[in-house]
Amino acid sequence: MSLNPKRTVAELKELRALTGDENGAQRVAWTDTWLKAREWFAAKIKELPVEHHYDAAGNNWVTLTGASEKALLLGGHLDSVPNGGWLDGSLNVLAALEVLRRINAEYAGRPPITVRVVDWADEEGARFGRSLLGSSAFAGTHSIQADRVRTDRDGVMLQDALRRCGVAIDNFPEAQKERKNAKAYLELHIEQGPVLERMGLPLGVVLGTKGVERHIINFYGQEAHSGSTPMNARRDALAAAAKLELEIRNIAKKHEDAVCTIGSVKTYPGIVTAVVGRCEVTLDQRDLDSRILAQMYREAQDVSRRFAEEEGCRVEWSRLWSIDPILFHSHLLDLCDQAVQATSGTSHRMPSGPLHDAAEVSRAGIPTVMMFVQSLHGISHNKIEDTREEHLEMSVVALDRLATKTMDWIQKQA
Amino acid sequence: MSLNPKRTVAELKELRALTGDENGAQRVAWTDTWLKAREWFAAKIKELPVEHHYDAAGNNWVTLTGASEKALLLGGHLDSVPNGGWLDGSLNVLAALEVLRRINAEYAGRPPITVRVVDWADEEGARFGRSLLGSSAFAGTHSIQADRVRTDRDGVMLQDALRRCGVAIDNFPEAQKERKNAKAYLELHIEQGPVLERMGLPLGVVLGTKGVERHIINFYGQEAHSGSTPMNARRDALAAAAKLELEIRNIAKKHEDAVCTIGSVKTYPGIVTAVVGRCEVTLDQRDLDSRILAQMYREAQDVSRRFAEEEGCRVEWSRLWSIDPILFHSHLLDLCDQAVQATSGTSHRMPSGPLHDAAEVSRAGIPTVMMFVQSLHGISHNKIEDTREEHLEMSVVALDRLATKTMDWIQKQA
Repeated sequence: MSLNPKRTVAELKELRALTGDENGAQRVAWTDTWLKAREWFAAKIKELPVEHHYDAAGNNWVTLTGASEKALLLGGHLDSVPNGGWLDGSLNVLAALEVLRRINAEYAGRPPITVRVVDWADEEGARFGRSLLGSSAFAGTHSIQADRVRTDRDGVMLQDALRRCGVAIDNFPEAQKERKNAKAYLELHIEQGPVLERMGLPLGVVLGTKGVERHIINFYGQEAHSGSTPMNARRDALAAAAKLELEIRNIAKKHEDAVCTIGSVKTYPGIVTAVVGRCEVTLDQRDLDSRILAQMYREAQDVSRRFAEEEGCRVEWSRLWSIDPILFHSHLLDLCDQAVQATSGTSHRMPSGPLHDAAEVSRAGIPTVMMFVQSLHGISHNKIEDTREEHLEMSVVALDRLATKTMDWIQKQA
Repeated sequence: MSLNPKRTVAELKELRALTGDENGAQRVAWTDTWLKAREWFAAKIKELPVEHHYDAAGNNWVTLTGASEKALLLGGHLDSVPNGGWLDGSLNVLAALEVLRRINAEYAGRPPITVRVVDWADEEGARFGRSLLGSSAFAGTHSIQADRVRTDRDGVMLQDALRRCGVAIDNFPEAQKERKNAKAYLELHIEQGPVLERMGLPLGVVLGTKGVERHIINFYGQEAHSGSTPMNARRDALAAAAKLELEIRNIAKKHEDAVCTIGSVKTYPGIVTAVVGRCEVTLDQRDLDSRILAQMYREAQDVSRRFAEEEGCRVEWSRLWSIDPILFHSHLLDLCDQAVQATSGTSHRMPSGPLHDAAEVSRAGIPTVMMFVQSLHGISHNKIEDTREEHLEMSVVALDRLATKTMDWIQKQA
């Protein structure tokens, strides 16, 4: 039985019909719809001579044992954001399943090395605000204390939602056992951005995931009556924030792939008849180069202080979250380049702005690489998220080629 | 018995103790605390030979009948915003009461013309979002149809809240009967802005109330992932809004007393990881000159379209509300100037940015003027709203002088 990329597309549609509605994919981790997706997946692998289990963090492992214990991992995630797209995460899992089928067929159930497909638990963090949950437990970077107290918008605690799915948060460290013998990790993903589409390329090689500096910035001015306060007597917190919104673009544009985003603005008291007394904004800065990221962070702080002063305000920064850039494995990058070249005739290396489970796997010291397939209109986390079917099929072919090359590379290792 | 301005200050403190708490004044119209304030006021006037009734819109009338039916009106409002200040509205009512006491004493209960004190119902519109409710019913500018469907944040309908206080919204037009024989209207108010304090003046003469153009402006761009969308591929609705926030200041500063304010910004989806796809802002523009107001409105529209285009967005405007400038009576302005001069040694004419019941009375064709007393730090609608006691006392003296001059002027009319 040879590789059948059309089956991957058909299975993606099957999953969409089963777990989506008119607003998009609803496979939010730790919900019944997500469990239904996992049951559907479990039925798919029944035909294969594989071992199947969920680890201590709820990650979903399918193992085709090979002649060697050394293992190639192929991963993705079946969970989605609410009203999400049909491809984000699922493409990876189902393409990996197709590759596993091909390997199983080629080696009659006994490949030279072990091949494992993993469906990570709660990549999106959509319900509890904690992304990469399962893969961080696998990597040992997870902090149980910080996550124990998380709640969803209905007040349900993260640990209670997990318990309902048979996962005990205190056992998370045991998920690290799955790292044993893992020699490489491959992850295919839709780009979720417009770069490949703009370049007219179906596939890309991902250099790594950008580091992120994420902050809440508060400008404090003076609330005042919009009718009775002359323009020159105002301390308008919104004016300082507006200057920052415009200046972060200049800060980012000095660097090729850097991005800076103010995604949320809140005004207080936030009424039509009052000058804004306090303005709270979020800032998200990303780059693959940690020096550039640090420089952009410093520059944003500097200009925010200058704008606050100009407007008679003060400014306070508070870090929401940060992560260093993760650079993927240089030899796997080369192999990925070759696989993409062989499939689409050309290749392009690019950083990933969004984080992925691959970043956590890489942090655990396992050689890792990702491949991107073009997204239409750069839109993701939305029901209109889409990719041309011919590109989806090419991505399965390219992942399969990369898996073959990586298995060879692992075999050659002492 | 002569004028006793210290009694006004003492009564303001008494009212504050009765109807305020640690968060400020709580005399929101149509609530029990507001009714308690009105009961307290009714007890205060028992000593006077006056007629007392509530009109069809809930306005509170105290009439000292004179030799002539021609009437001088002195007004204010006992209602406050939630967590409001101790002076906004109440100063006017209690200063007017003190002036009424002085006139009653001077003329042994029978002044040459009739003098009436009015406590307008629901000046603030704090609960139902409809300010100047009682005075607009008096002026006949009120639209019952538009207000019948208003609800507070608990879903209580305006007309039901009024009925509980004995007011039937369908009878509102009858409040216009109170206009009969009204020959002038005087209103003292705290400035609620920083102008007099900055000029070192206790009192000011109010030229009129500024016209207002109030709009909601929506910029539509493209929601996009903050990590995967290059800076040059973005259509950031917030960037267009930020440019507008900065440019409206230039539009306002061309004119001496004009103001433009963006008081509220809402971002959609409004999350740290997404470029803003839609940004909704409120714009409030005011000036005493209708041509300047119209010009500022046009300019804001023009630049908003330019900024939207620059950012690959589109923009939509929707009018929330507008009112023409109201210019007070020129002879009463002169009399007010004289009263302020005689009391504080100097005078200053200025527009009012906030609206007041005086605007509605003026629209009804009754000669009207307002007097401002200095506010500390320009702060109002807040528990820290304050005015020096010596200035409060001076304002009672000046209002009394203005009442005397206005009574003379009314008497001289044919």
